[in-house]
Amino acid sequence: MTRQQLTDQIRRKRSYLCVGLDSDPEKIPRHLLSDPDPIFAFNKQIIDATKDHCVAYKINTAFYESSGSKGWEAMERTVDHIPSTHFTIADAKRGDIGNTSSHYARAFFETLHFDAITVAPYMGEDSVRPFLEYTDKWTILLGLTSNTGSKDFELQPAGDGLLYEKVLTTAAGWGSPENLMFVIGATQPDWFENIRRLTPDHFYLVPGVGSQGGSLEAISRKAMNKDVGLLVNSSRDIIFAGKGEDFAAVAGEKARGYQEEMRRYL
Amino acid sequence: MTRQQLTDQIRRKRSYLCVGLDSDPEKIPRHLLSDPDPIFAFNKQIIDATKDHCVAYKINTAFYESSGSKGWEAMERTVDHIPSTHFTIADAKRGDIGNTSSHYARAFFETLHFDAITVAPYMGEDSVRPFLEYTDKWTILLGLTSNTGSKDFELQPAGDGLLYEKVLTTAAGWGSPENLMFVIGATQPDWFENIRRLTPDHFYLVPGVGSQGGSLEAISRKAMNKDVGLLVNSSRDIIFAGKGEDFAAVAGEKARGYQEEMRRYL
Repeated sequence: MTRQQLTDQIRRKRSYLCVGLDSDPEKIPRHLLSDPDPIFAFNKQIIDATKDHCVAYKINTAFYESSGSKGWEAMERTVDHIPSTHFTIADAKRGDIGNTSSHYARAFFETLHFDAITVAPYMGEDSVRPFLEYTDKWTILLGLTSNTGSKDFELQPAGDGLLYEKVLTTAAGWGSPENLMFVIGATQPDWFENIRRLTPDHFYLVPGVGSQGGSLEAISRKAMNKDVGLLVNSSRDIIFAGKGEDFAAVAGEKARGYQEEMRRYL
Repeated sequence: MTRQQLTDQIRRKRSYLCVGLDSDPEKIPRHLLSDPDPIFAFNKQIIDATKDHCVAYKINTAFYESSGSKGWEAMERTVDHIPSTHFTIADAKRGDIGNTSSHYARAFFETLHFDAITVAPYMGEDSVRPFLEYTDKWTILLGLTSNTGSKDFELQPAGDGLLYEKVLTTAAGWGSPENLMFVIGATQPDWFENIRRLTPDHFYLVPGVGSQGGSLEAISRKAMNKDVGLLVNSSRDIIFAGKGEDFAAVAGEKARGYQEEMRRYL
């Protein structure tokens, strides 16, 4: 998906919501467990109920890998079920030497048909480059994350600034705002002014709203750019809002609530 | 596997060789492609031919994920086939917020029965902690890698030293030499003196020998500690040494060559 197609979707729907399919098998409503593929059965209903309110889905690979090859199959079926109008993100945090990253790129961009993958920056340019070489695919590099561990390295001094600043400015030279986004956590909205100064044109994938405590309003006010430039993700807060047989309808309502709030900020 | 069990294996075999199963489907001998599971058929023969000469196997997850759920199945079958005497490493470079890392830990330590997993440090302590909480399992954190991109961040100034030094000294406080190792690339042997000074007791997983140009002798002379403290990995140089029907025997000979050289350094 191109940047133009993504921003068209955002303008049309007046939503920059990404629904995170962190489909933990232990949190799926009990009545689905008799299904031969409970994770996919859950995701299918969640997608059908939320797709009018969001522009993207993010699949957190950990929650599939913990079920082994059956989980990987559920991921394959889920990606296939997401409408082509929606931007699909493999939240996989991969990254390795070039030859290995090429195989990860193939796994998520070819074998699975994701539009984007999250990538860890530690190993530097040649670990990221293979993802950037695909046309109309996106690399979403970790910038400043929402967890407490961000203080250990990301927020430590590195050269003239902090490490995450060095990552943003260095990696901005590897790709362009047409194929590179950054993960910027929602729990630290005060940092967004500085982050926008460093990377004015890039999209940010912003997790941490909802269950993790980030404020949608604060982020939207501080981080939006002329093309919106934001995909705000909510996972548990939407997909596990309901516990019963009506879980999908409850998730749909939650997603609609986010969409309505987003309309006010656009 | 405990550290004592690992060092016992190393002493008994007089080898600290790790065979890397970077089993690229495109490089597997052609005659195996008619097998219903060519990757596993390849790995099985490689393992049977090399197991007397090595103490560990490292599975590079990218080369399995690029084949989708079938690749993941091949990985499951491969781990099951590795003898319990051998230390098994998921070279997965995972790492995410705590709740997600817990699922990765479950994926590789419970659903699959690996002894160890490689983890990326960027997101800090809470992204690493879930892996360290398992008894007799190992976290192998990226320290200084063997690729050219290591200069982008790992070798950049961070605080009083370089970033990789900060990672080593900080992470050494999260685990112990009984459950934490570091990935240190073989292509930069001159750094090993300093690295040993910072982390005298830890094991290092050292990739980059052979095809990538690292010298086994230089690393062994500079980085060994009283418990050996090294697992030196070779992948392509062993597993793709032969191209014909005798590929496994050729790989076995290559592994035996490494073992014989290692005997001289022990």
